[in-house]
Amino acid sequence: MEYKFSAGLAALKPSMIREILKSSGTTIPLAAGNPAPDAFPVEDVRRLSAEVLAESPILALQYGISEGYTPLVETLLKLAKERYGAAGDNDGLIVVSGAQQVMSLASQSFLNPGDAVICEEPSFIGALNCFRSFGAKLVGVPIEADGMDLSILEEKLKTEKNVKFIYTIPNFQNPGGTTMSWEKRQKLYALAKAYGVLILEDNPYGDLRVSGADVPAIKSIDTDGLVLYSGSFSKIVAPGIRVGFVVAPKPVIAKLTVAKQTQDVHTPMLTQLVVYKWLTECDFVGHIEKIRGIYRRKLNLLCDCLDAELGDFITYHRPEGGLFVWAKLRDDLDMLSFCKAASAAGVSVVPGVAFMVDETAPTQYIRLNFSTPSDDDIVKGVRILGAVARDMTAKG
Amino acid sequence: MEYKFSAGLAALKPSMIREILKSSGTTIPLAAGNPAPDAFPVEDVRRLSAEVLAESPILALQYGISEGYTPLVETLLKLAKERYGAAGDNDGLIVVSGAQQVMSLASQSFLNPGDAVICEEPSFIGALNCFRSFGAKLVGVPIEADGMDLSILEEKLKTEKNVKFIYTIPNFQNPGGTTMSWEKRQKLYALAKAYGVLILEDNPYGDLRVSGADVPAIKSIDTDGLVLYSGSFSKIVAPGIRVGFVVAPKPVIAKLTVAKQTQDVHTPMLTQLVVYKWLTECDFVGHIEKIRGIYRRKLNLLCDCLDAELGDFITYHRPEGGLFVWAKLRDDLDMLSFCKAASAAGVSVVPGVAFMVDETAPTQYIRLNFSTPSDDDIVKGVRILGAVARDMTAKG
Repeated sequence: MEYKFSAGLAALKPSMIREILKSSGTTIPLAAGNPAPDAFPVEDVRRLSAEVLAESPILALQYGISEGYTPLVETLLKLAKERYGAAGDNDGLIVVSGAQQVMSLASQSFLNPGDAVICEEPSFIGALNCFRSFGAKLVGVPIEADGMDLSILEEKLKTEKNVKFIYTIPNFQNPGGTTMSWEKRQKLYALAKAYGVLILEDNPYGDLRVSGADVPAIKSIDTDGLVLYSGSFSKIVAPGIRVGFVVAPKPVIAKLTVAKQTQDVHTPMLTQLVVYKWLTECDFVGHIEKIRGIYRRKLNLLCDCLDAELGDFITYHRPEGGLFVWAKLRDDLDMLSFCKAASAAGVSVVPGVAFMVDETAPTQYIRLNFSTPSDDDIVKGVRILGAVARDMTAKG
Repeated sequence: MEYKFSAGLAALKPSMIREILKSSGTTIPLAAGNPAPDAFPVEDVRRLSAEVLAESPILALQYGISEGYTPLVETLLKLAKERYGAAGDNDGLIVVSGAQQVMSLASQSFLNPGDAVICEEPSFIGALNCFRSFGAKLVGVPIEADGMDLSILEEKLKTEKNVKFIYTIPNFQNPGGTTMSWEKRQKLYALAKAYGVLILEDNPYGDLRVSGADVPAIKSIDTDGLVLYSGSFSKIVAPGIRVGFVVAPKPVIAKLTVAKQTQDVHTPMLTQLVVYKWLTECDFVGHIEKIRGIYRRKLNLLCDCLDAELGDFITYHRPEGGLFVWAKLRDDLDMLSFCKAASAAGVSVVPGVAFMVDETAPTQYIRLNFSTPSDDDIVKGVRILGAVARDMTAKG
């Protein structure tokens, strides 16, 4: 049988990342994006799961409503309002099966094949591939140290047809590590309003700030019902539970709920109940402080190692949070060759092309992660990268 | 802001069911489709969750791969082969977040707007709405006591353009309660092969047989790679955990995996690990026998009550399993008026129109469920339905 796949999915090619990262032997993972296991509240989850299954087993095991467990929805809406400034009176909220589902629900709800999505370039591959799978045309806007280049954004808004939304990760962008300034957030909102385009504000890393001051969410100025705000518990509780949420204007929430019904009916009740108890019974703020300490240490360790071992070979901005460092290789280092040589030497990093709208356009960037590897592996891994760079330039 | 939703989702209207079922006061739920809570292996889930979080907390909380937890994938593939005859050597399997996700992944992977999906009529509204949301044209084929009317199916295959797949629930169909005969399964497969169309075989109820003999899966004769087979743990473990699986030819599994990555990255690890332990450590077959006993008792109770209280007013085939009875009202009872009057009298049933491709076409059918209500409520509920029918015909 010759399978006739949908246009969107047929065009989605397997990522080159997997091929490049294939490596025999032990690999030090500076490529992955897994949160640090020692940041998981294991004891809490263990205790709360037991309590949920002791106190409310049928609630935890029976079908739930697509919007999410009502007390959790209410708690999250309050949290979104009070902690993140990301919910107004005209907004609703639903629980999703991890923030990736927000991209999928938004795509299913808004995208017709051929519609355009404006995204930061580079950006999160999981979101880009989701938009691609719905047949969207991706329109990239380069990021600067303080977020999207807004003059290019305006140019694209003027020239591109059927732009449905602008996708942005304003805090500690993946992979760029950049945080959009307050000034740019306001201007971005004004542009979206002027051109009648929605904003998809993806904020999985916002709580992982390790230095500097919080910048208010774009959603906080959404008086016109333009912003879908996506929140995640993957980085502050654990990714394996797959719980996130989306705040959006009520008519949008109504459509996202219908889409969610068609995707997975509802997010598992057990994990929703655990998150509900965790938010209402545990020390949420204290936990965030604790994990910020872990990420601060690891981010600084990676950057200090990079400065010491690769200072001559790369340039980068030290991010104020998140999970990633986006580093530009010196021009005489071929980026893909460097990634392959690193992999062969036992260290995985992600070639920057993976995050581009056009995966064939040349780029000198690589993405480095500090949350997955142990501290020892960060030190060892960067030392190996330094040796690879020296070796490549000595040969060249 | 005026929201421009996608064509598929914009056309999806809120179901009339909710409106009709709105009722003040206590309602006896003969409408819902929830599995019986006393069929949930609560003690097992409680113990296994505790074990998973004690033995493998990081595995349970960290990101997993999109295909599913590898030992679970292998266990399910073996189960699909040996118990369900639903996996050949050229097939792969992925874990999904409930069987609804199979419909969504298949839609995302195969459907371009305007493509046709052939479905049984009546059929499961969750699947129909999923196909609709991707802009598919639904083509209904009536069901007979032994499954789809194959002459009409062939007619549709001849005349309809861009048919991507035939959607069928061969065992204890929802809502029809019918089981497709072995002869029809073979003929259906031959037709699909002749016309180069895939089959989406949805089997959430297969293990809930309470009488008669099992009929082999359509997938069991799939020598040509035409069949996607969807399995669910919602009815044999619990729906709230949202774990199911799909077996399909390997090239199809590869695309479904990409689609899954864009939807929710992976199914939660905690629930996957619980299902894995349950399948490998608990008495799977004994549990199925136990819950069959529960469903046998409740199905027979409902049907006995229907015969006693509504024998003059309805006709139906007693199903050999599943969760539903599909009953046709006598012509002098207006179906929608009956559902409304039943709701006002405190008993919810689903009007048959909800399951139709064309929700405005007239039908005399209602769907009755026996798994959600208690035994007492089944007796009370059907007694009330009898009174409603007598009252309506006395007035008329």
